[in-house]
This record gives sequence, C-alpha cells and structure tokens, in this order.
Amino acid sequence: MFHWLDVIGTMAFAMSGALTAINKKLDPFGVFIIAFVTAVGGGMLRDALIGQTPVSWMRDLNYVYVICIGFVLAILFRKKLDRLRTSLFLFDTIGLGVFTLIGLEKGIDAGLHPVICIALGTMTACFGGVLRDILCNEIPVIFRRQIYATICIIGGVVFFALKKLPLDDDAVYVITSALIILIRLVAVKYKWSLAPLEK
Amino acid sequence: MFHWLDVIGTMAFAMSGALTAINKKLDPFGVFIIAFVTAVGGGMLRDALIGQTPVSWMRDLNYVYVICIGFVLAILFRKKLDRLRTSLFLFDTIGLGVFTLIGLEKGIDAGLHPVICIALGTMTACFGGVLRDILCNEIPVIFRRQIYATICIIGGVVFFALKKLPLDDDAVYVITSALIILIRLVAVKYKWSLAPLEK
Amino acid sequence: MFHWLDVIGTMAFAMSGALTAINKKLDPFGVFIIAFVTAVGGGMLRDALIGQTPVSWMRDLNYVYVICIGFVLAILFRKKLDRLRTSLFLFDTIGLGVFTLIGLEKGIDAGLHPVICIALGTMTACFGGVLRDILCNEIPVIFRRQIYATICIIGGVVFFALKKLPLDDDAVYVITSALIILIRLVAVKYKWSLAPLEK
Repeated sequence: MFHWLDVIGTMAFAMSGALTAINKKLDPFGVFIIAFVTAVGGGMLRDALIGQTPVSWMRDLNYVYVICIGFVLAILFRKKLDRLRTSLFLFDTIGLGVFTLIGLEKGIDAGLHPVICIALGTMTACFGGVLRDILCNEIPVIFRRQIYATICIIGGVVFFALKKLPLDDDAVYVITSALIILIRLVAVKYKWSLAPLEK
Repeated sequence: MFHWLDVIGTMAFAMSGALTAINKKLDPFGVFIIAFVTAVGGGMLRDALIGQTPVSWMRDLNYVYVICIGFVLAILFRKKLDRLRTSLFLFDTIGLGVFTLIGLEKGIDAGLHPVICIALGTMTACFGGVLRDILCNEIPVIFRRQIYATICIIGGVVFFALKKLPLDDDAVYVITSALIILIRLVAVKYKWSLAPLEK
Repeated sequence: MFHWLDVIGTMAFAMSGALTAINKKLDPFGVFIIAFVTAVGGGMLRDALIGQTPVSWMRDLNYVYVICIGFVLAILFRKKLDRLRTSLFLFDTIGLGVFTLIGLEKGIDAGLHPVICIALGTMTACFGGVLRDILCNEIPVIFRRQIYATICIIGGVVFFALKKLPLDDDAVYVITSALIILIRLVAVKYKWSLAPLEK
C-alpha cells in the first residue's frame, strides 16, 4: 500500500528535513540522512516497537525513491525556499493527516487497544520530526510550539468515534484526515499554541 | 503482572520526567511525552532489543493510566515541588529497585546470559532517564553524576549470587530490591559519586 | 561468527567512544556506556530494525568482553592518546570496512533488496558513532565532516557489482573491505570532505 497521498506526505517530510539540515550547515550526506529520518522515522519507530520488522521502508523501495527525489528537489530549490514555503506547509499538513491514519491502521491491524492506536498514529506523524530535531541537537520543536501532535490525538479520537457510526471505512478515513488537515490550517492561521506551564 | 510497586515506580518516574520538562519550559504535550518516555523508555528499549513486541506499555494500559495520573499530579503540584522533593526521591529510588528486577526477570525469561540480564536490568531502570535527557537536549545526568546505574549493576550481581543459595525466589527479589534501595539512600546521603577521569 | 577482524573493529570503536566520553568529562560509568554504544550501536539499530532479536551483542558475549578490554585500555592509555592516534585511526578504519560488510551480509541473509543492504552496511559502520555523538549532545560528526559514510555506500555498490562477476565470496569480501579501507586512508590523507551546501 503506497498511495499517492503517502508519496506527498513522505516527500514533504523529506524536504522539510533536508531544509532543516541545510540550515544547520550539514554536508550532503548529513542532509540526506536527516531527510530520510524525518520522512520515515515515525513509521520506523512504530514498526520496531510493535514488532513489524523489517520496518516498512526496508520492504518497499518506493519510500527510498520518493525521499531521494525530495532530497534532490530540496537541494535544487533551497534558495527559492521562501516563495515555496506555503506549498511545503500544505504538503507537510497533508503528511500529518495521512501518516496519522497509517499509524492508526497499523495499530488496529496489530490488534492493539484504541488508546495505543492513537499513540501510534501520533508517533507515525510526529516522531520523524522529533528524531530530526534530536539529530540536529535541538529540543524537539513539537514539544515547544504549535499544536501539532495534539491535532493527531484529536484526529485519532474522532476516528474511533466515527468507526462506531454506520459509515464505511473510506468515509471514516477521508473525514478524519480532512479534519486533521483543517484543524492544522486553522491552528496555524490563528497561531493557536499550547503555552508552557508557569512555575 | 502490574504490581503496586510497579505503580509506584512508574508514577515516580513519570513525575520526575514531567518536572524536568516543566523546568525546560516545554508545552503540556511536551511535558506529557517526556513524562511518558521517562517512565516507560527503559522498558521499551529493552523490549525492542530482545524482541518482546509489541513493547510492554502497548500490551498493558495500566502503564498509560498511571503515567496520566503522574502527569496530572506533577502539573498540579509543580509549585510545591520543593516540599515534596523527599517523597519524590523515595519513589524514584523504589522505582530504581523495582525496574532493575523487572529487567533482570525479562532477561532470564528470554534465556539470556546473566551478564546480559544485568545489562537489561540496568537499562530498564536507567534508560528512561537517559531518553528524557536526550529529548531535553542534555548530556544524560547518569553519565555525569551520582552512582545510579552502578547500583543497578551491583544489585544484579547480588541477585545472581543469591540465586545460587537455597533461598526461594521471593526472598531473592525482596533482598535485591531492598539492597538497591538502601545503597541508593546511603549513596545520596553521603554524596557518593564517580569522579570523572582526569586527562 | 566473531572473527578477529570483528575484534579489531569492535575494540577500536569502543576505544574511540571511551576517549570521546573522557574528553566530555563523563564519569567511568558514562565512559563505559558511550564505549559500548559506539561499538555495538550500529549493529544494534540494524538488528532491531530488521527484527533480528535479541540483538547481536546479547547473543554473543565476546562483544561484551572485547568492549570491556577496549574500555580498560582507553582509560589506562588516555594520556598517551596523542602518540597512539595513528594506530587508533587504523583500527577505526578496519572497523569501518569490517562492519560495512557485516551489515551487507545481514541484509542479504534477511532477503532484502541491495539498496537496503547498502543502507544496512552503512548503518552498521556509522550509527554507533551517531549514537555516541547524540549521547554526548553533539551534532553527529559524520553529518558535518569527512567522507565517512559515503565510503561505506561506495563499498556497498562495489560489493554488489563484484557479486555479479565470477568471483568467489571470499574474494568479494576481501576486495570490498580493502577498497573501503584504502579510500578512507586516501580521503583522510588528502583531506577529502563534502562541503556543506551554501544557501
């Protein structure tokens, strides 16, 4: 199952990773690894923890190809980044929706409890970015700014609520991912964020 | 097997993680993840490396519930931390003893060599804190201060020595964890630590 | 399969990890863990991701023994480091060649695609160092300087090219590792490196 939405999400995540690494002045190999880890890191962690090994990207070369293309595009267009920022943000948001659903599905397939499935959806969508930030020696951005992971959690809860209704699976998928994408767009537009806790 | 000692250890580790993250000014989601990783990170790493998947916290929701409670308590009482420091330290020390034993047991169940079992006990007790520090962008505190992991190693050696004696399993468990807890209390009271190596 | 070349590579990696940790002023336990992770981290990550668990070092105590010896040697001779730098570099380079081949082989045994096998070879040789740098709170050095991982990739490509020729397996192994070692020696002598991408 390597869908064209999956392609968009993987490529967007690879490009966002590559651009972060270029800004950190890493060499091309470093840029490639960060792109790779950002794109597949969440799914890789999920697969290792639920025991679905070899992990997904080792079983489907499409991930590798898409990441290579994303890497090359990021390098070629790195100076035009500013004008492309909106497209990249849109891709990234689609990735968020798609990856959350893939994680939810893998958890259901593994027979895990809905709470754990929601954790796996969030992990799939968010932990590539966490690994990217750790490799770049930063505190992960999703722990500090923006509601990002929180949207995945909301999406997961809605997903299981919809599953109880007499809807077919495709409808549940489309509604959930559309909702995740929508909340993220609104959240960024109105600069919603979680405040740090005061001490 | 989710024992009330396990509850105390998990909750103490979750609270210690949450408090570290609050001090780092993370947002509530970040605080939750750090609490989670501190509490289950060592066991999660152990399970992934020995191939016990899905990892423990995915198979027993009690972990998730206890961590949620620890997270909420840490947030509610964050300003009273100073007065609670002693209780937290005691909980953390109990966690150290309990988690070391759980790791030792899992290694034995997997048919691994005593040396590897001791490594797994130490990993279970200490690597949640290592992952917490990495996510918070610090050099892990157990590599720099206090004898902490060393106590787990001593506990593991004593555990296998006791196993050779004609004692029943429960006695071995109680003595080993009591010893770990005791050494830690004494070590902190007298400020024992490993000095860095001079160059 | 624990060959004497494996011993050299493991020990060199353990010593390089220990010396990095001593420079970071970690305590002896921290130094030991960093030595351990540097030596077995790449293989451990590989095994966890392809599902070969318990991971290699848990199934073969020779790793543990060799690392302990490397750790002790690094501590004893830490002040004479400067004069030993060349030997250490040679050991490390042998480790690079040997570990790449081990990773390639494990990938082939797991029935994975050559592209994935090359990734596994590179991971085996390079990710111990990546984990070392993360634990020491640095951006991994292989993302910033020297062509190091790139040599493993070249070695992997040559390996699969040679496999198509009518050579026996041993010849392919010897030629590939000799090539990796040779390129690395030349690369360091002439200070080849990948430049960071300008923005």
